Amino acid sequence: MKPSGIISLLTDFGTQDGYTGAMRGVILSIHPQAIIVDISHDIPPQDIEAAGFLLEAHSKYFPRGTVHVAVVDPGVGTERRIILAKTADYYYLAPDNGLLTFLLGHPHVRFYQAANPDYWLPEVSTTFHGRDIFSPLAAHLARGEKLEKMFSPVQNIVTLEKPDAKKEGCSIIGRVIYVDRFGNMITNIKREWLPEQLERTEVIVQGQAIGPVMPNYASAARGQLVATMGSFNRVEIAVNLGSALEYFNHALPEEIVVKWC
Amino acid sequence: MKPSGIISLLTDFGTQDGYTGAMRGVILSIHPQAIIVDISHDIPPQDIEAAGFLLEAHSKYFPRGTVHVAVVDPGVGTERRIILAKTADYYYLAPDNGLLTFLLGHPHVRFYQAANPDYWLPEVSTTFHGRDIFSPLAAHLARGEKLEKMFSPVQNIVTLEKPDAKKEGCSIIGRVIYVDRFGNMITNIKREWLPEQLERTEVIVQGQAIGPVMPNYASAARGQLVATMGSFNRVEIAVNLGSALEYFNHALPEEIVVKWC
Amino acid sequence: MKPSGIISLLTDFGTQDGYTGAMRGVILSIHPQAIIVDISHDIPPQDIEAAGFLLEAHSKYFPRGTVHVAVVDPGVGTERRIILAKTADYYYLAPDNGLLTFLLGHPHVRFYQAANPDYWLPEVSTTFHGRDIFSPLAAHLARGEKLEKMFSPVQNIVTLEKPDAKKEGCSIIGRVIYVDRFGNMITNIKREWLPEQLERTEVIVQGQAIGPVMPNYASAARGQLVATMGSFNRVEIAVNLGSALEYFNHALPEEIVVKWC
Repeated sequence: MKPSGIISLLTDFGTQDGYTGAMRGVILSIHPQAIIVDISHDIPPQDIEAAGFLLEAHSKYFPRGTVHVAVVDPGVGTERRIILAKTADYYYLAPDNGLLTFLLGHPHVRFYQAANPDYWLPEVSTTFHGRDIFSPLAAHLARGEKLEKMFSPVQNIVTLEKPDAKKEGCSIIGRVIYVDRFGNMITNIKREWLPEQLERTEVIVQGQAIGPVMPNYASAARGQLVATMGSFNRVEIAVNLGSALEYFNHALPEEIVVKWC
Repeated sequence: MKPSGIISLLTDFGTQDGYTGAMRGVILSIHPQAIIVDISHDIPPQDIEAAGFLLEAHSKYFPRGTVHVAVVDPGVGTERRIILAKTADYYYLAPDNGLLTFLLGHPHVRFYQAANPDYWLPEVSTTFHGRDIFSPLAAHLARGEKLEKMFSPVQNIVTLEKPDAKKEGCSIIGRVIYVDRFGNMITNIKREWLPEQLERTEVIVQGQAIGPVMPNYASAARGQLVATMGSFNRVEIAVNLGSALEYFNHALPEEIVVKWC
Repeated sequence: MKPSGIISLLTDFGTQDGYTGAMRGVILSIHPQAIIVDISHDIPPQDIEAAGFLLEAHSKYFPRGTVHVAVVDPGVGTERRIILAKTADYYYLAPDNGLLTFLLGHPHVRFYQAANPDYWLPEVSTTFHGRDIFSPLAAHLARGEKLEKMFSPVQNIVTLEKPDAKKEGCSIIGRVIYVDRFGNMITNIKREWLPEQLERTEVIVQGQAIGPVMPNYASAARGQLVATMGSFNRVEIAVNLGSALEYFNHALPEEIVVKWC
C-alpha cells in the first residue's frame, strides 16, 4: 500500500486551545505536502468508545493509503503503548486503550507498536503525545518512510468489551451507542441483522411502539419519534425536525427493540 | 468557467460527529487535488434562511470557479431535488428548499438538478446525501467533469419568502436576520438604501434612539449599544466590547428603524 | 527567510458565522497555492492575553517561513495600527494591541506596520479587517511579495503587562493564565525556574498542598487534583480523568505556589 499523503485526525482535543494547530505544524514541518483532514476534534473528552465508533464509521470513505490518527488518550504519559494497525487500505495510529477494537477480525490487519524515538520530536512531553509522537509518526508514514524503521510487530492490543445487540428469534434487543449533534440516537442494531423488508418491522423504545424502521426522518410528522436506517447503516431513533435527545429529556432509553413477527 | 479545484462547504452538520470528515474523504477519493475549504458547519440545525444568508455573504470572496456546497437539508431522503446553480463565477450545489433564493435575479444564473446516479456513491443512504450525493458531485465538478453529464436543466427552484426591509420616505423599518457569535445583530437594512452621510441618520431599536450609524464598534462607550455599518454591508446592532444579544436578554428586538429626516 | 506558503490563522471569530471562510476565500484568490492552517478560531472573544499565550506556544511548531495571522481585535476600525513582526523563522501579523508582547526581546525581531492600501481589498469595512486587510497581506507575504512594499518599519509596539510569577528563595508564587478545554489550568510557572528533580517540589493550590509536580495526569487517583509539567512546559493543575475547572466550581484559584525547601 502506497501512502496517499493524506492524514486524517480524530481527537478529543477540541478546537479552542490550538492543540490541533500544533499537530498540523509538526506534520507540515516533516512533510510539507501532507494533506491534513479533520474527522473530528470534539469527541467527548476521554470517550474511547465514541472515538472508535466514529473512526470505524468514517475512515472507510477516505482514499486508500490514508494515515488515520486517533488520539483519545486518558493514559497519556503512562506506559501504555502507541499502536499502528495496517489493513489492506489504511494505516491507523492510536493509543493502546481499546480505541482500535473495531479492527479485530478485520481481514489482513497487522498490529505494531511505536518503537523508535528517533522518529518522534526531540523533546517529548508527558501530556501531549498527539503533538510529540503521533504527529511526527503520521508525517513520516505519509511521506513514505518504511514502517519497520519506526514500529515493531505486536500480537495483541487492548480491547474494549463491545456489548453487541442480542438477537432472539425474530427480534433484536439493542441500545444507544452514540448521540449526534442533531440529537439522533444511533444504536448498535445493524442493517444486516434485519429483514430485507423494513416495513415489516416494529420498533419499541422504552416500552413504546413507534412503528417500523422508516425510509427517512420525514416519514414522521414534525416533532414525532421515528426509527430510521441512518447513514451509519444502523437503526437510529430520531425526531422529525427535532431532537430525540431532547424528546427523552437527555436520558438515553435503556433498550431499543426491533421485532418482525 | 474553468473549475478552480476549490470546494467550499457550508452545512449544519456540526464538527463533533465526523460527518464532514466523511464528506472530505469522499471528495478526496474522487479528486485528490481538491482544495476543501470550510465556510461553516455550525449553521443552526435546519436553519435554511441563515444558511442562504451566509452563503450569499461569504461565497463571493472565493476564486472564480469555486464549487460552493451548502447542505442544510431537513427534507433529506424525500423527493426534494438537488439543485446546481451556475453563475458567471461560481457553482452552487444545494437541496431545493429555498437555500439558493438569493440567486434569483442574479445575472446569467442557470439552474440544474442532479439527474445521474452514476456520479453518486454506489450506496445512497436516506439521511446523509451530503456524503453520498453532494460530495461526489462537487468532486466531479471541481475535477472538470461536464455538468451536462450529471445534471439536467430546470426552470424554477423552491424559494423562501424573504421579508425585505420597508422603505417609507426617509426612514427604513427592518429586522434582525442573523446574530453572530459576538452577539452582533445583523439586520436586513442594506448600505445602499441609506444616505451617503451616515452621521445624519438616527437608529431606533425597540423604541430607543441610539444615535446614528457609526463608523465602528468603538464609537460607543464600553457596554453601550451602537449601530454600525458591518462587514456584511448592512446595519448591525452591537455593544462595544460586549454582546447585543445579552444586552437584550437573548430576545431579538422586533424592529429596527433608521431615519434621516 | 523564504516564505513556506503556509499561513496559520488564530482568531476569536468562532466557526459558526463563516467569517474565517471569507478569509480563506480572500487568501486563495490572491495565492491559490497557499496552505491555510487553523490554530484556533475559538479564542474567548476579545481575550488578547489568551491569544498571545497560544500564539507563542503553538506557532513555534510550524515550518520556517510560515506567516502567522492573529486577529483578536477589539479596536478594529479605530486608528490602531496593524503590525508585522519578522523573526528569524516566522512572520507574525496582528493588530497593535499587545497580542505580540511575547515577541519583545526575541532575538532579531523587527517590527513593521501595514502602510500600503494597494495590498488590501479595494473595499475595507470598519469591522472586519481580518478579511479586508490581514488576509490579503498574509497572502501576498506567503506568495513572496517584498514586505517593504507593503509595510514600513516601526520602533515600538503596544505591550501588555504580563504579571510574571514571583520567585522567592526556593519557592515560586504564580497564577493561572489559561484554562483549556479539559479544564486543565495552565500557570505562569515555567519549567526552567524549577529544580531538576521535580519530585522534590510541593505544590500548594489555594492553601491546599497537593504533592509534588508529577510526571503525568495518571499519577493521581481518578478525580484527584494533580500538578503536572504540561505540554506548554509550565506547571498545570489538573484532575485525573476529570476537570480542575469543575473541581474549583469554575473559580480560578488565586495563587499557585511551588516550594522545594
